[in-house]
Amino acid sequence: MPLDSGEKLGPITLVYETYGQLNNGRSNAILIVHALSGDAHAAGVHSLENPDPGWWDSCIGPDKAFDTNNYFVICSNVIGGCQGSTGPSSINPRTGKPYGLSFPVVTIADMVRAQRHLIDYLGIDKLLAVVGGSMGGMQVLQWTVSYPQRVRAALPLATTARHSPMLIAFSEVGRQAIYADSNWNGGDYYSGSHPKSGLALARMIGHITYLSEISMHHKFGRRLQDRERFGYDFKTDFAIESYLHYNGNRFTERFDANSYLYVTKAMDYFDLSQGHPNLAAAFAKSTDITYLVVSFTSDWLYPTYHSKEMVSALTAIGADVTYCDLQSNWGHDAFLLEVETMTGLMSDFLERVEAEVR
Amino acid sequence: MPLDSGEKLGPITLVYETYGQLNNGRSNAILIVHALSGDAHAAGVHSLENPDPGWWDSCIGPDKAFDTNNYFVICSNVIGGCQGSTGPSSINPRTGKPYGLSFPVVTIADMVRAQRHLIDYLGIDKLLAVVGGSMGGMQVLQWTVSYPQRVRAALPLATTARHSPMLIAFSEVGRQAIYADSNWNGGDYYSGSHPKSGLALARMIGHITYLSEISMHHKFGRRLQDRERFGYDFKTDFAIESYLHYNGNRFTERFDANSYLYVTKAMDYFDLSQGHPNLAAAFAKSTDITYLVVSFTSDWLYPTYHSKEMVSALTAIGADVTYCDLQSNWGHDAFLLEVETMTGLMSDFLERVEAEVR
Repeated sequence: MPLDSGEKLGPITLVYETYGQLNNGRSNAILIVHALSGDAHAAGVHSLENPDPGWWDSCIGPDKAFDTNNYFVICSNVIGGCQGSTGPSSINPRTGKPYGLSFPVVTIADMVRAQRHLIDYLGIDKLLAVVGGSMGGMQVLQWTVSYPQRVRAALPLATTARHSPMLIAFSEVGRQAIYADSNWNGGDYYSGSHPKSGLALARMIGHITYLSEISMHHKFGRRLQDRERFGYDFKTDFAIESYLHYNGNRFTERFDANSYLYVTKAMDYFDLSQGHPNLAAAFAKSTDITYLVVSFTSDWLYPTYHSKEMVSALTAIGADVTYCDLQSNWGHDAFLLEVETMTGLMSDFLERVEAEVR
Repeated sequence: MPLDSGEKLGPITLVYETYGQLNNGRSNAILIVHALSGDAHAAGVHSLENPDPGWWDSCIGPDKAFDTNNYFVICSNVIGGCQGSTGPSSINPRTGKPYGLSFPVVTIADMVRAQRHLIDYLGIDKLLAVVGGSMGGMQVLQWTVSYPQRVRAALPLATTARHSPMLIAFSEVGRQAIYADSNWNGGDYYSGSHPKSGLALARMIGHITYLSEISMHHKFGRRLQDRERFGYDFKTDFAIESYLHYNGNRFTERFDANSYLYVTKAMDYFDLSQGHPNLAAAFAKSTDITYLVVSFTSDWLYPTYHSKEMVSALTAIGADVTYCDLQSNWGHDAFLLEVETMTGLMSDFLERVEAEVR
């Protein structure tokens, strides 16, 4: 498969899961795409031995937002990641060893290019909808620009059409934390110790940005962790510190440090307007797609005005756009946490789109 | 000197600079206290060989906000730091070696306790004003609570009466970056290589938080650094990345990693209301002090509502408070950058206070 960089990548494995049944008209397929640390396991459980529910289980299933009685739901992983799809930790067939940093840098458009092969393979001509939040939202937008004829409706949630310098800054500091870990070894660590402390640090920074100042007050405040008074030392004093340590360390058990570099780089490179006079021009061929754009008031990582810019561009080209800026204290995480509101909003929207298709 | 932890520290060196002349009544002294990475060199230049102006040179000097024709301006460093005052990099007189982590954990109140000895030493009974932004603002508030009879007016800028969980989270991630640097060696590194990459990483995180999403758009946008197109590699692509690298590395030339741990810990522990039923009760003895509280609309590190809580508490005890929430796009850095507005505001306020003293 050709990549935006000019390199070629292959063979490619792309992991996906499906829920519900494809109808005879092949017209009820919804593609769900995930955020930075997500994977193809979006709903249900794999087995009694592996009882972790999918990351969007609250929204996918019978009578949920993506009602599997009605829809054929596909969740696709991304290339460059580490959850089974081809990425830097995969074996390079030419050398028989993991790619490491010899893996080519991929973009959001490359991720979507690989997903289009999946949709071809599943025999689906047109997706009823593509849905995703955060980096998933970037893939949604890219789908509507790269393959507008393959998408009926698009739901970009808590996202942006152009990664901002602040987002690039947080990405880069996370990457620097990984580079600084002596176990990283220029990306060549698969036969030895992995750069876990660097990756944990990158994840801790991420976790701060997914919350909001207010939600941290509600969730942690200045509560101490396993202490009744300050320790006057450099052990853990506060609950928020303990939360970050726990989540940082846990992340290293399921994510690959090199993939963190590749996936954040793909996000940093994301700018739909690149190569066009403006964002509206990028959407020029997307006029027949129906959009539901959602942002959240306390999301300071992807602030509301990014979604408004997107909506202005879509309105300028005459697309059918519904926009909601939802009141929430949960920061960027809101797109996963405001289940009730999101369910009402998304299922009504899909019902309308489905009715128009019939 | 006794410390909040119950430990004792001594002998103590406290570095300070002064500008202007103390008047005969010893009534024109203004104490300036600095933020996390600041020092006692607030104004002027030391010599032609060392021409760096002080960190608040724009506001201190003849006809400036703190007019040295009228006022005797003192800038005091903090204990725990590394700019000449006693801190973890100082020689422990008992061992003849640097303290490292055997240095006791100090608090904002301990920093202020040391500064009170300086004011005693200078023969000043009552400061006309105490002024500072960010961590400096915490010292200002602590001065008015610890030594209310020694302060006529207080100017806490871009600060909080209680370090928030988000601030603690950013502090802790910076500390973890230092701990993770193998050169840190449990704080015992003064005879070898210093943990520069960990400290640089901590500083890069800090720099993101001092700006705003909008100011980063204005200052950097998605501009590339020394490249005309994406490199599709992991070298520096964007100007914002280059800015972070430069400032992170430069910081390691002037700051000690252990001091970064101690000073951030002091900030995390800061909660004026601790030991009181509420914040107003903490200010119970500060009723005779005149306050000018300033916050900035785009400061997401010390959001406006923190200052409003402070103002409510001060109003509740009947203190004379002026509050300004200044419109600025510069984020937390605004208190150093909005020179013109701040000069008008602060010099008018000081004139009024001075007139009341006369």
